[in-house]
Amino acid sequence: MVQIAVLGFGTVGSGVVELIDKNQASIRGRFPEGIHVKYILDLREFPDSPYHDRVIHDYNIILNDPEIRIICETMGGKNPAYAFSKSALEKGISVCTSNKELVAAHGPELLRTAAAHNCSYMFEASVGGGIPVIRPLLNALSQEYITSIVGILNGTTNYIMTRMEKENMTFEETLRIAQEKGYAERNPEADVEGHDACRKIAILSSLMTGKTVRYEDIPCEGISRITKADFGYARNMQMGIKLLGMAHRNEDGSVNVRTAPFLVSRDHPLYSATGVFNAVFVHGNCVDDLMFYGRGAGKLPTASAVVADVVDCAVNLGRNVDVAWSDEVLPLADSSKEVRRFFIRAAADARDSLLSAFGSDLEEVSSDTPAADECAFVTAAMSEAAFDEAAAGISGIRTWIRLF
Amino acid sequence: MVQIAVLGFGTVGSGVVELIDKNQASIRGRFPEGIHVKYILDLREFPDSPYHDRVIHDYNIILNDPEIRIICETMGGKNPAYAFSKSALEKGISVCTSNKELVAAHGPELLRTAAAHNCSYMFEASVGGGIPVIRPLLNALSQEYITSIVGILNGTTNYIMTRMEKENMTFEETLRIAQEKGYAERNPEADVEGHDACRKIAILSSLMTGKTVRYEDIPCEGISRITKADFGYARNMQMGIKLLGMAHRNEDGSVNVRTAPFLVSRDHPLYSATGVFNAVFVHGNCVDDLMFYGRGAGKLPTASAVVADVVDCAVNLGRNVDVAWSDEVLPLADSSKEVRRFFIRAAADARDSLLSAFGSDLEEVSSDTPAADECAFVTAAMSEAAFDEAAAGISGIRTWIRLF
Repeated sequence: MVQIAVLGFGTVGSGVVELIDKNQASIRGRFPEGIHVKYILDLREFPDSPYHDRVIHDYNIILNDPEIRIICETMGGKNPAYAFSKSALEKGISVCTSNKELVAAHGPELLRTAAAHNCSYMFEASVGGGIPVIRPLLNALSQEYITSIVGILNGTTNYIMTRMEKENMTFEETLRIAQEKGYAERNPEADVEGHDACRKIAILSSLMTGKTVRYEDIPCEGISRITKADFGYARNMQMGIKLLGMAHRNEDGSVNVRTAPFLVSRDHPLYSATGVFNAVFVHGNCVDDLMFYGRGAGKLPTASAVVADVVDCAVNLGRNVDVAWSDEVLPLADSSKEVRRFFIRAAADARDSLLSAFGSDLEEVSSDTPAADECAFVTAAMSEAAFDEAAAGISGIRTWIRLF
Repeated sequence: MVQIAVLGFGTVGSGVVELIDKNQASIRGRFPEGIHVKYILDLREFPDSPYHDRVIHDYNIILNDPEIRIICETMGGKNPAYAFSKSALEKGISVCTSNKELVAAHGPELLRTAAAHNCSYMFEASVGGGIPVIRPLLNALSQEYITSIVGILNGTTNYIMTRMEKENMTFEETLRIAQEKGYAERNPEADVEGHDACRKIAILSSLMTGKTVRYEDIPCEGISRITKADFGYARNMQMGIKLLGMAHRNEDGSVNVRTAPFLVSRDHPLYSATGVFNAVFVHGNCVDDLMFYGRGAGKLPTASAVVADVVDCAVNLGRNVDVAWSDEVLPLADSSKEVRRFFIRAAADARDSLLSAFGSDLEEVSSDTPAADECAFVTAAMSEAAFDEAAAGISGIRTWIRLF
């Protein structure tokens, strides 16, 4: 029986404890000894929880108990999670986390610490909730030269965009519903402004390259500027609008990474990820296209990914499971050179200036709820820089959205 | 440098050799020593191949070369693949295979042999081509209680059904095109009659249960009875028709497995797997729904899965990677008790007898290419047995298809 401790008895942490009880038989299928949660660290008491007698408030009890071999860090935030994780790893205690903020900020350092102390630092749950995506990238695809990763990485925004598309609602209406359902925080900024998705694509692109992609370096846009009107055109174009995190390798090996809303065709498998579901679309030079789909959040799905790591750490006790992620920072390629098509929605009287600025290969598109005072176009493929230049000074432009 | 041998220099085997050359750098990212193909076993000579000097015809050269630690069995068929694999494993040489026929027939025995000789038997490529699906089931999901697996497991039939749906073509027309494109064999029986998909769901359901699901025990239907007319109704119902292999755990723990064509809603993620692509949809009691999507066949995608196994064997040299699959045969639950809805297409004059046999909750459906002499309905949810009984003796029934 391997003894573990869970740090933080919130949604994910309580899910981890529940899952380990509920699925002990499945776990023993791969790790016959079994896994037992000895301590739960939290500032609060949980008198009504069946696990109340395992709740402690002093981290040192865990650090100083030689029985503890694995810790689940499900606290979130950088502090004290960083100090707690680091001190555990330095004692040879493996750490499994769902904390994308910490992984994006200190992943390579914590991986190095784990390697130096013959234990492991695992973070499957930090991206895509319950979807196995980190592990396939590191193991099942280690023979591939990955050329791109494109993901719907945030369930909150995908839920909002799906309802806006299917039910022709406004951003504000759907955000309120998402908050009522608990899919969105009271302060939704981290989700709707794309910061959460940006941290996740930073992690995935770092694993793709083996270097560190700093999320501060990634161009990041959220969905708050997407309107009901935009979906009128999207539906007519047989498209949805999805917040995508994408990493792409160019011919010369340089890498572009971006987080932004994109128009996505209904024919693309990523379109099938609706509501709170996430999907990660990967292209390898030999395996070609792959997609991993599932629940990107939620108590038990996220806990499932944490426990998958716990089982892996248990199977590999005393051994470091190596992850090739150095802290050498990867300078990103010039994002203004990225080439794609753009959707433009503008005042009707901007038509002529648009046509003269973008040329005749501008393709006019219509909405399923037309507005007399409006016109809309899709451009030919052009660079971000060329688009900005052409769009500059055309006062009638109401919005524009990239096409995936 | 780990030395390996490739048995069979056909499509997959040549892909394996090519991929190991092409992606050696990626491989060294996880296995720094690197991997080298020392021998290629084939009955033929390949004077024009850059690898011609590694081609040999005597298997004993491989078996008796102590440098060889891993073999890729990409010959297909049961013999001599079975004898070759067994004798290698008995010498402690790990075997990686794409041979679903052999895995479905002798998987547990070969796994036992590997375990007894501190080597491994791996078969990621036997299901879903390049899609990592076996490995996630065994590792990333070992903490889950898997309740169902539903897969589009055969690219040939999916290609045929997709073209029939999108281009309103006949089965015969699309089969001919598939043969011209090399997606279908000259003798297409193994694909179109569902035997290939059946072997794959036998493997997946065995891994789900840890026991042996014999493919001979699985009710298996192909797609040759699906017509252009059926797709007229499917399109109008916002559905496609897919050949599915499915394994489902009932409340009492018993398991149903089936291979058959099903009507699948356009809203279901499985619908997004079109053409030669495969997808495997998994439900776990904690992680909920997951889907794995990618190329189910093809030279390099399939080779990619074989090499993924080779790298895993290399990382675990001298150690057995355990797979919980016993040769205890799992008796399947009574398939006549499976409950679902059914689509029925019949002669117009059969309407009254259908309504009296199936009752008023029969829902009439129409085609986008209506035929005056025809009527069609979708039944309420009912057992296979009840459906057979109600349909028996209604002479006008032209076809019927299950709804997923």
